[in-house]
Amino acid sequence: MKLMRHGASGDEKPGLVDAHGGLRDLSGHVRDIAGLALSRDGLARLRAVDPSSLPMLPPETRLGPCVGGTGNFIAIGLNYADHAAEIGAEIPAEPIVFNKAPSCIVGPNDRVILPKGSAKTDWEVELAIVIGSRASYVHANEALNYVAGLCLCNDLSEREFQLERGGTWTKGKGCPTFGPLGPWLVTLDEIPRLDALGLWLDVNGERMQTGSTATMIFDVAQIVAYLSHFMMLMPGDVITTGTPPGVGMGMKPPRFLKNGDVVTLGIDGLGQQRQEVVAFDDWTAKVAAGEPTH
Amino acid sequence: MKLMRHGASGDEKPGLVDAHGGLRDLSGHVRDIAGLALSRDGLARLRAVDPSSLPMLPPETRLGPCVGGTGNFIAIGLNYADHAAEIGAEIPAEPIVFNKAPSCIVGPNDRVILPKGSAKTDWEVELAIVIGSRASYVHANEALNYVAGLCLCNDLSEREFQLERGGTWTKGKGCPTFGPLGPWLVTLDEIPRLDALGLWLDVNGERMQTGSTATMIFDVAQIVAYLSHFMMLMPGDVITTGTPPGVGMGMKPPRFLKNGDVVTLGIDGLGQQRQEVVAFDDWTAKVAAGEPTH
Repeated sequence: MKLMRHGASGDEKPGLVDAHGGLRDLSGHVRDIAGLALSRDGLARLRAVDPSSLPMLPPETRLGPCVGGTGNFIAIGLNYADHAAEIGAEIPAEPIVFNKAPSCIVGPNDRVILPKGSAKTDWEVELAIVIGSRASYVHANEALNYVAGLCLCNDLSEREFQLERGGTWTKGKGCPTFGPLGPWLVTLDEIPRLDALGLWLDVNGERMQTGSTATMIFDVAQIVAYLSHFMMLMPGDVITTGTPPGVGMGMKPPRFLKNGDVVTLGIDGLGQQRQEVVAFDDWTAKVAAGEPTH
Repeated sequence: MKLMRHGASGDEKPGLVDAHGGLRDLSGHVRDIAGLALSRDGLARLRAVDPSSLPMLPPETRLGPCVGGTGNFIAIGLNYADHAAEIGAEIPAEPIVFNKAPSCIVGPNDRVILPKGSAKTDWEVELAIVIGSRASYVHANEALNYVAGLCLCNDLSEREFQLERGGTWTKGKGCPTFGPLGPWLVTLDEIPRLDALGLWLDVNGERMQTGSTATMIFDVAQIVAYLSHFMMLMPGDVITTGTPPGVGMGMKPPRFLKNGDVVTLGIDGLGQQRQEVVAFDDWTAKVAAGEPTH
């Protein structure tokens, strides 16, 4: 299944994508793509629904983040061998774990706001894991049982905040709009090989990132198992799993996002995102003028 | 007001403490101590309720964490000048920010479980801030307007996971039961001076930590303002603000928690906590035998 959420920001309703790419409303069957709906039983109930019986939504419907009720937005750093090489970092012996503020989660095509005073906002196309049920001390060989599905994530990062302000990476990872998720939460049965998914990201139509999950250092199952030994993973938790080569920070000279840029990105089978970048002051002016903010 | 939450774990109901220390049920007036109830208007509505009109609860009622719906559990590191000196760390130029998994939040007197394989679980008495309404780019001189109140937190920490497993501190900070919060969420009007609160923590009745918010490097208002420039703070978010001297890691030789230890802690005006420490294997045996797990 390709599950999604649609409607106004903060008031999204559940939906799915039918076999012809049509958007269908699931409000009659489940309250949200969140919590218990993400469990194996919850997903089985949604799978039993005939998509053609569901109300069709107009194609211009706004898509929200593809999962609701995210209580923990975890990120893995330096998880692609070729990206670690690109920025001159050692291959980590264990996954590097940091956090994004859940309040940064937005829809896949919402505007991305450059934070006030930011000069170093960067892009990162990533494969994200959505947890389906509580996971604590699980082994890698059973870890996928706790996963509801996967989605596309742009792990936006302010490099000055992340690296030059002391302490951990948290400061540069959770600014408002820094977590576009979706368009779809794709269940694992739709993804034949987790280790051969192509990833790409363009800025203004120019290819910046090209990668494959084949070069991931720690795979989806290993990451879920590893994290579950340090914390209880909960339904709706999102784990974004690191980025392949081609981030702006790694370029010579470094290149960062500016007002008016358009970022597009995608992963095989997980759909695409498109974000217009807007500087903080321009965004507040747009809000003041009553323009739509996504 | 002293707000609290009572009842079974995961199904807590709202309550308050009356002028005589009695526990009263607020279920008739609000659904939870969470979300909009934490706003200025929400708190004003609860303040208008006559406590003597509320159903009394038995004194042995289990207390849950004093706030619900925490979407982000943020922590500040090395924020007491005397604690930084104790562990030989420099005074940070800017707040050090890391995260605890919200799934680690438990009631103030629930059992603390030593993680599987843990040999270095440590205590940290801390003052925690509960956010009352959305805060983004706020100044320190208005930051307290966004705070619902304060509470006591034991920022339990597994030092090997935190410091010896690569990457950020996250791994040692969010293990299940590592975030006892409460007993009460105390609104700011009940706390005359934020910069003169005594903190203490005992293990098995022996005093380990003694401190005062007078030696905090960054104060409550500064922390809220600072964080709000990096992320949108949301109602129910909790920020624990660092620990004074006396952690086990700082002792010579270091001293850590073991099965059967009892930790008690308190902050002036914010109440006390009491936790029995149980090793992971003992805890799973207790659960299997049907014993209560808190």
